[in-house]
Amino acid sequence: MHVLVTGAAGMIGRKLADRLARDGALGGTAITMLTLTDIVEPPVPSGFSGSVRRVTTDLAAPGVAASLVSTRPELIFHVAGVVSAEAEMDLEKGYRANLDGTRALLDAIRCVGEAYRPKVVFTSSCAVFGAPFPETIDDDFHLTPLTSYGTQKAMCELMLADYSRRGFLDGVGLRLPAVCVRPGPPNKAASGFFSAIIREPLAGRETTLPVSEAVLHTHASPRATVGFLIHAAGLSREALGPRINITMPGVCCTVGEQIEALRRVAGDAAVARIRRAPDPLVETIVAGWPHRFDAARARALGFVAESSFDEIVRIHVEDDLGGRIPD
Amino acid sequence: MHVLVTGAAGMIGRKLADRLARDGALGGTAITMLTLTDIVEPPVPSGFSGSVRRVTTDLAAPGVAASLVSTRPELIFHVAGVVSAEAEMDLEKGYRANLDGTRALLDAIRCVGEAYRPKVVFTSSCAVFGAPFPETIDDDFHLTPLTSYGTQKAMCELMLADYSRRGFLDGVGLRLPAVCVRPGPPNKAASGFFSAIIREPLAGRETTLPVSEAVLHTHASPRATVGFLIHAAGLSREALGPRINITMPGVCCTVGEQIEALRRVAGDAAVARIRRAPDPLVETIVAGWPHRFDAARARALGFVAESSFDEIVRIHVEDDLGGRIPD
Repeated sequence: MHVLVTGAAGMIGRKLADRLARDGALGGTAITMLTLTDIVEPPVPSGFSGSVRRVTTDLAAPGVAASLVSTRPELIFHVAGVVSAEAEMDLEKGYRANLDGTRALLDAIRCVGEAYRPKVVFTSSCAVFGAPFPETIDDDFHLTPLTSYGTQKAMCELMLADYSRRGFLDGVGLRLPAVCVRPGPPNKAASGFFSAIIREPLAGRETTLPVSEAVLHTHASPRATVGFLIHAAGLSREALGPRINITMPGVCCTVGEQIEALRRVAGDAAVARIRRAPDPLVETIVAGWPHRFDAARARALGFVAESSFDEIVRIHVEDDLGGRIPD
Repeated sequence: MHVLVTGAAGMIGRKLADRLARDGALGGTAITMLTLTDIVEPPVPSGFSGSVRRVTTDLAAPGVAASLVSTRPELIFHVAGVVSAEAEMDLEKGYRANLDGTRALLDAIRCVGEAYRPKVVFTSSCAVFGAPFPETIDDDFHLTPLTSYGTQKAMCELMLADYSRRGFLDGVGLRLPAVCVRPGPPNKAASGFFSAIIREPLAGRETTLPVSEAVLHTHASPRATVGFLIHAAGLSREALGPRINITMPGVCCTVGEQIEALRRVAGDAAVARIRRAPDPLVETIVAGWPHRFDAARARALGFVAESSFDEIVRIHVEDDLGGRIPD
């Protein structure tokens, strides 16, 4: 099987490529070739016995998508995209990367011809939802995004469903919760503190908490997120039915509960590195985000998230800190 | 005030232009100029004292939308689009006309510059909904269209909301129910019989009914539909709030109730011209359509539909048959 991963240089794309390389197979079928593409050069995953092709390119540019699918990958993970803050700062870049890039990929697949019908796993986001919300967001709650990023993801979900219905491809869109703990340096995203309050203290560094400990949010680890993508690739058309865009499960907890999980895993010393520094702007932004999802369909389809935030902290230690907490 | 109407040669566009010309004003402000555009030449509405400019052009073609908004119309009714059956038959044409045409218009408005922020009234459709449905579709039910037409309308709704949120324009999207009674010759749309079973018998012609009399559907007259558009143009940003796409009200009734309304208005002889000819294909298509809408937000915002199907039949007689029923 030939697998194409877009956005393969990003955090999720890299972890996905590593997992595919390590597993060497998917649903019992050997992966013989991995095509990894992104706007910057993706790293080569280690330990893969098949061939790896890396393509550094802009998916939205003319002819690029057609070239990528001309070799007919049976499975496509479409992870590429511009993140929320960037799509809000630069409107044209966001629509170009997130909407036009996806549309270029879907149209290129359509244009290959009748016999080609790949599985396409698309990373959508819970940013497709916009306040006001009910206590818990059900699987049939409408999409009223309050960011351009969420708008673009919702538009792509619709197109993916239409192209699936028409038989050009077998699509499945996954609305990811907040991915936590994100490794790497702190970023400027308003959501950055959800990861920073775990990652920075674990690394022995101080960090700030800009919101109240009562703030409620839903999280999944990078490992669980990659697991969602792999699980989605194995779902049959029949199991999915016509509603192919699905809200993923996660651990719903308060910031206070996140901090208590950190204390259980790493002790009081780690927790002491979190300094309260309320930021009214961040508090306002976060108040507009969804808190809790029912995700009944996803659970019924076998998608599995962590069962506690403690588990999310431990996965970060295992996957990103080599299994040990620095002194 | 300068008003631009796209799709001005279509059934709703023509009736809207006639109403604007007849009223000569909107919300107490005189209409000094009407720009009417469509892919075929729109008719000149009669009795208008201001100036009328007709532009026969393709909205999705490069530069066209920019040219149309360069004169800064304060109010834009965006009615243009390819209908459901055509968008399903010709995928590229549908995406081009319905998605790219709308996007071209919205981007052209954005590019005019900061001081320009027109009101944009967009005709969406209840085709944005897709089965399975609850008994009544609430205002917060999700959009899972089962046609490319519905997909394109839903994508445009999202973009309209995003561009409104960002302050480029003041958008409002109206999800229209079935427009009934449609004047003119029968068309090939699967929904055509809802109008034909009223229009054809009233004109002394026989017609066929392809579905059971138990089929439930929601209707609004062309006159009420034009009324929705006019009412939407007068809504303030504050009244609308961030959720600018609204399901319109209508008369929900069975085909049997439609026929009894015809009997009350036009007698047994008219009803006798309806011949039962069940068509399994049409029955299947119609079964996938939504039946009943709550439309609570629209009603609260002052949108008014007919109160009975009898009224819809009488409006057809008044507006399209010159007030009298042929013998």
